[in-house]
Amino acid sequence: MTFRFELHQTDGLARRSTFHTPHGPIEMPAFAPVGTQANVKTLEPRDLHEAGAQLILANTYHLYLRPGHELIKRFGGLHAFMGWERPILTDSGGYQVFSLADSRKLNEDGVIFRSHIDGSLHHFTPEKVMEIEQALGPDMAMVLDECPPPLDRAYNEEALARTHRWAERCKAAHHRSDQALFGIVQGGVFEDLRLQSAAFLRQLDFPGYAIGGLAVGETKEAMYATLDFTCPALPIDKPRYLMGVGAPEDIVEAVARGVDFFDCVLPTRIARNGQLLTPDGRMNMRNAQYAEDHRPVQADCTCYTCRTFSRAYLRHLYKAGEISALRLGTIHNVHFMLELMRQIRDAITAGRYAAFRAEFLARFRITDQATRHAQRELRAAARMQGN
Amino acid sequence: MTFRFELHQTDGLARRSTFHTPHGPIEMPAFAPVGTQANVKTLEPRDLHEAGAQLILANTYHLYLRPGHELIKRFGGLHAFMGWERPILTDSGGYQVFSLADSRKLNEDGVIFRSHIDGSLHHFTPEKVMEIEQALGPDMAMVLDECPPPLDRAYNEEALARTHRWAERCKAAHHRSDQALFGIVQGGVFEDLRLQSAAFLRQLDFPGYAIGGLAVGETKEAMYATLDFTCPALPIDKPRYLMGVGAPEDIVEAVARGVDFFDCVLPTRIARNGQLLTPDGRMNMRNAQYAEDHRPVQADCTCYTCRTFSRAYLRHLYKAGEISALRLGTIHNVHFMLELMRQIRDAITAGRYAAFRAEFLARFRITDQATRHAQRELRAAARMQGN
Repeated sequence: MTFRFELHQTDGLARRSTFHTPHGPIEMPAFAPVGTQANVKTLEPRDLHEAGAQLILANTYHLYLRPGHELIKRFGGLHAFMGWERPILTDSGGYQVFSLADSRKLNEDGVIFRSHIDGSLHHFTPEKVMEIEQALGPDMAMVLDECPPPLDRAYNEEALARTHRWAERCKAAHHRSDQALFGIVQGGVFEDLRLQSAAFLRQLDFPGYAIGGLAVGETKEAMYATLDFTCPALPIDKPRYLMGVGAPEDIVEAVARGVDFFDCVLPTRIARNGQLLTPDGRMNMRNAQYAEDHRPVQADCTCYTCRTFSRAYLRHLYKAGEISALRLGTIHNVHFMLELMRQIRDAITAGRYAAFRAEFLARFRITDQATRHAQRELRAAARMQGN
Repeated sequence: MTFRFELHQTDGLARRSTFHTPHGPIEMPAFAPVGTQANVKTLEPRDLHEAGAQLILANTYHLYLRPGHELIKRFGGLHAFMGWERPILTDSGGYQVFSLADSRKLNEDGVIFRSHIDGSLHHFTPEKVMEIEQALGPDMAMVLDECPPPLDRAYNEEALARTHRWAERCKAAHHRSDQALFGIVQGGVFEDLRLQSAAFLRQLDFPGYAIGGLAVGETKEAMYATLDFTCPALPIDKPRYLMGVGAPEDIVEAVARGVDFFDCVLPTRIARNGQLLTPDGRMNMRNAQYAEDHRPVQADCTCYTCRTFSRAYLRHLYKAGEISALRLGTIHNVHFMLELMRQIRDAITAGRYAAFRAEFLARFRITDQATRHAQRELRAAARMQGN
């Protein structure tokens, strides 16, 4: 069998496993840096190897538009095209169509949209997306789904049945045995919808299951609660993937609830904004307080950036607008996330995940303005609705 | 003696030498990639080591303004601040004051200017520039000079005596024995002025001599002619540095005339514009013709970019606006320049520099639009002046 999921150990609900793929094993819990356009921004494959990346995510929507899935297929697929010989996963492009593309029109058949690059018209159906992902050739592909706002019950109800029919059509159109097609559980923050979705998709017997539609506006508490009831509804012998998550604190919480792997632009995106991750939380490297700071970003970090440069030098590069700042920050943040995953795996193996989680969360200061703003907004909305 | 210039061999006027500095030897002819703000754009010290860089240039004007020479001094100088332990040279900032700063006012004492960053007022005198360069701590520093348009005889005549008095003041204000202060020969394209300048500066007995004021608007022919009469006027036992040059073809021609080392933003700057250097000339990686080109940029190149990626993938990164494109292009171009210098050194050692030069120039197609445009303009101007 090309794909094999080995569950080595559990610690509470946290799982220590290995997912074997055609391009090698992935030790889980795992984190996939995001290489939207067949490139993890500012990094090369050798940098990802150095950081210990086991898999990366690439975006179907972007690569379909540019340079085109057929061109990539003629180059032997994404691995050969981008020089990355370890596992790759692609999303289905559905989320990007809804968040990036122009003039979307959705019906039972699929979704028609205009390219955000040149305005050209395109049509994604489940069958078309399967054609694209099979041409791109990642180890893991995702079914086409719709990703409604997680708090909108009516929209989630309406979308769920269609998303399920699309999952069936994707499965029927998928033929590559060297590619694992994942089903995506939807249903917003609503327990009955999530359970219904999980039950439906289990019956289609996918080799892995993604949890979609989270980390897009709901509170952290709502996300964790959703994982609380969704994870137990998934098969124990298949990998569980929480899409688009996340922040270090969210990963630590999701692992505690039984999630096996993650992808997120957060470490790469915030690095380009000058925010670097440490066990104490985020540092803004542009701050004047680092102007003469001789220390590395993180004292015990073994990444190239921390081994080589002071905070003062990094601050200088950020302030001077040097491209190298974005890259050196990205090297550190990706290393931080992958080191976090190593610590998570070790803690589960040692049967001390609860203690690890408590220690991590006690120290890691959450300063995500967007999250705090969203939480305030949602609380205000809840008060106005009297619930 | 901290500095020692060993002339190993000559081949015609071309010289194969070693310049020993406190941070190690520089095999010459040599090329210095430019790290304006204490960073060669998109590259790290390890990349420069991999490419075989022996020295880099940093800009006094930029580092004085940001982060400030005193901060860098407190960090132990540029080498420690930027993590580069091989030789560094700095310019005097004079050229940048005249080309970048706002509202310049020049008199015998020095030049008053406004920062291009925040409009603040600053005063460069020979003594101030020596204070800055000695604080920055490069192995080689340059005297403050004025760099008039090379074809303007009256301006060059007027500026030369002042530039010479500034050179004397710089020498008097320079005390670091672990830093070699270079004199800068000026005089535009005018033989009598260049000879006068060389004679004056020789008498001050600098440990090395720079040739300034070229590659800023004159034709290639005028630049080469200027080197023809300037180089023989310089001492045989001191290194000769042609500032701000250059294009591969200019370096090959200048070495044939007796120049020992060079710096130029060209390889790094054009890489960020998508132009990559090969023995056949420049390639524009954005061109559609490379969309499905499986080959590396340069077949026999050993740089990371050529060892790892196809032209098609690089074109995709450039077209998609990925930062990685700028970096991968820079890696290649810097490697190309340093490989060219290795070939130049080998050819001199083998006593076949004339043949190397002929072969290189026969193959390397010159497509520099700016140079061709400048040449046309200057020819037109010369016709109108009847000379």
